[in-house]
Amino acid sequence: MSELQKIAEHRSFDGFQQRFEMRSQALNSSTRFSVYLPPAAAQQRVPAVFWLSGLTCTDENFVTKAGAQMYASRLGLALIMPDTSPRGDGVPDDPDGSYDLGLGAGFYVNATQAPWQSHYQMYSFVVEELYETVIANFPIDGQRIGISGHSMGGHGALCLGLRNPERFGSISAFAPICAPSNCPWGQNALSAYLGDARDAWTVYDACALLRAQPPTQPILVDQGSADEFLAEQLGTENLVAATSGLDHVRIHMREGYDHSYFFIASFIGDHLEFHAANV
Amino acid sequence: MSELQKIAEHRSFDGFQQRFEMRSQALNSSTRFSVYLPPAAAQQRVPAVFWLSGLTCTDENFVTKAGAQMYASRLGLALIMPDTSPRGDGVPDDPDGSYDLGLGAGFYVNATQAPWQSHYQMYSFVVEELYETVIANFPIDGQRIGISGHSMGGHGALCLGLRNPERFGSISAFAPICAPSNCPWGQNALSAYLGDARDAWTVYDACALLRAQPPTQPILVDQGSADEFLAEQLGTENLVAATSGLDHVRIHMREGYDHSYFFIASFIGDHLEFHAANV
Repeated sequence: MSELQKIAEHRSFDGFQQRFEMRSQALNSSTRFSVYLPPAAAQQRVPAVFWLSGLTCTDENFVTKAGAQMYASRLGLALIMPDTSPRGDGVPDDPDGSYDLGLGAGFYVNATQAPWQSHYQMYSFVVEELYETVIANFPIDGQRIGISGHSMGGHGALCLGLRNPERFGSISAFAPICAPSNCPWGQNALSAYLGDARDAWTVYDACALLRAQPPTQPILVDQGSADEFLAEQLGTENLVAATSGLDHVRIHMREGYDHSYFFIASFIGDHLEFHAANV
Repeated sequence: MSELQKIAEHRSFDGFQQRFEMRSQALNSSTRFSVYLPPAAAQQRVPAVFWLSGLTCTDENFVTKAGAQMYASRLGLALIMPDTSPRGDGVPDDPDGSYDLGLGAGFYVNATQAPWQSHYQMYSFVVEELYETVIANFPIDGQRIGISGHSMGGHGALCLGLRNPERFGSISAFAPICAPSNCPWGQNALSAYLGDARDAWTVYDACALLRAQPPTQPILVDQGSADEFLAEQLGTENLVAATSGLDHVRIHMREGYDHSYFFIASFIGDHLEFHAANV
């Protein structure tokens, strides 16, 4: 297991906001991630929530903008925040420089296509390498871990959570890309990373996964009605249809809220309470 | 009075996070400021807190990083967040490009020296022009306004508040520059903006103001013990000495906290509760 280098630490709500760098085998690159440790972690192992960020983000956006530490401190939850793609020398980026492919846009998949497949293994990185690294290195209860995320990271939280119920006991998402096989962001990324054969996309499409098998974990989703990406990219109606009649899935439409971190901050308390109660 | 142009709006904790641009007479430039309106402002005039940010900030740092909207929403407080200096074409900056003079470093003074005096009138802008603008344009109770800020903005909150008790009913600060006449940041800025005659500095030095006259308003100050600027720049011990024996002044040293927004976020709830109770 790779050694962790602590590159930042701040006292926050009686706990610690930390940032680390490690060499990742899955990503074949160095990578950074952030951790919030609540005060309870000084005495005992605590439950944790993985947070997967959206397009263009690093591990830092959620750390600085979501206001999550206050709730995590009170609830005794650790927060684990990876980057959104591999980065560094030799890691390919979209030659057109678009924001929705390549750096900052790993989509939490294991790429199979050139030039992506040698580094873009975010699925394995999060589910296996980072997951095992944080349990080994932090006072985290490996039996009580949830997963959440925003937009591309909401897609990631749903897919990684649904496929790994033994690893993630609760799943939540803000404004997730619900059906990437059927929207421009998803089609662009999945065809680049996985190729044009759509059979390979199914395991990275939350609605396809849910249609194949009902979820074993409770799921909470919040979506803003004024979200500028709702109609074209997010496909919330597909998620509503795919989870119809499931009592342990709650999907809230929030009137007037947009796609920004102001939306996330407004409801992150609900999500962390949900994870604390369900992991 | 100048016309306000709304340049951004986001739903936030059932209220609205807004950003405006206006032409300022005091600053002889256009300027931007942010406003948070809590849900209570839809029904009635609400109390407000002015927030003055620190070196290098704009109006946006506090908006995105402090997590203040949750408390402001619950307490029914509006938040008013100006920029930290004039900006735009023709506004001079430090020719050396330093971060502690010129753009982003207005120090909330009315400059008297060239080349600064034609634009750097942040004292009058905040106390008069912006103050009157927000009362005229927003559902804010002009009898219940407090002032707070961080670092350079903590200095500003103390000075503007102490000099204008009829305008600001409560004062608070995070890691303020307490005695700018006696630290490198303050001496550099005050000599540039006001000249080398130190008599002119007194009205912009919180400790000098407090020694001349005890405050009429309650004051709350938080300071991190691990603040990297504490020893050289902030001079908290001078503020402690200048307010010794005053029951309505509380100064807390917070063990292990640094100068960052993680510190502000950890205690902004205490400060907004203080203002809600005292304005």
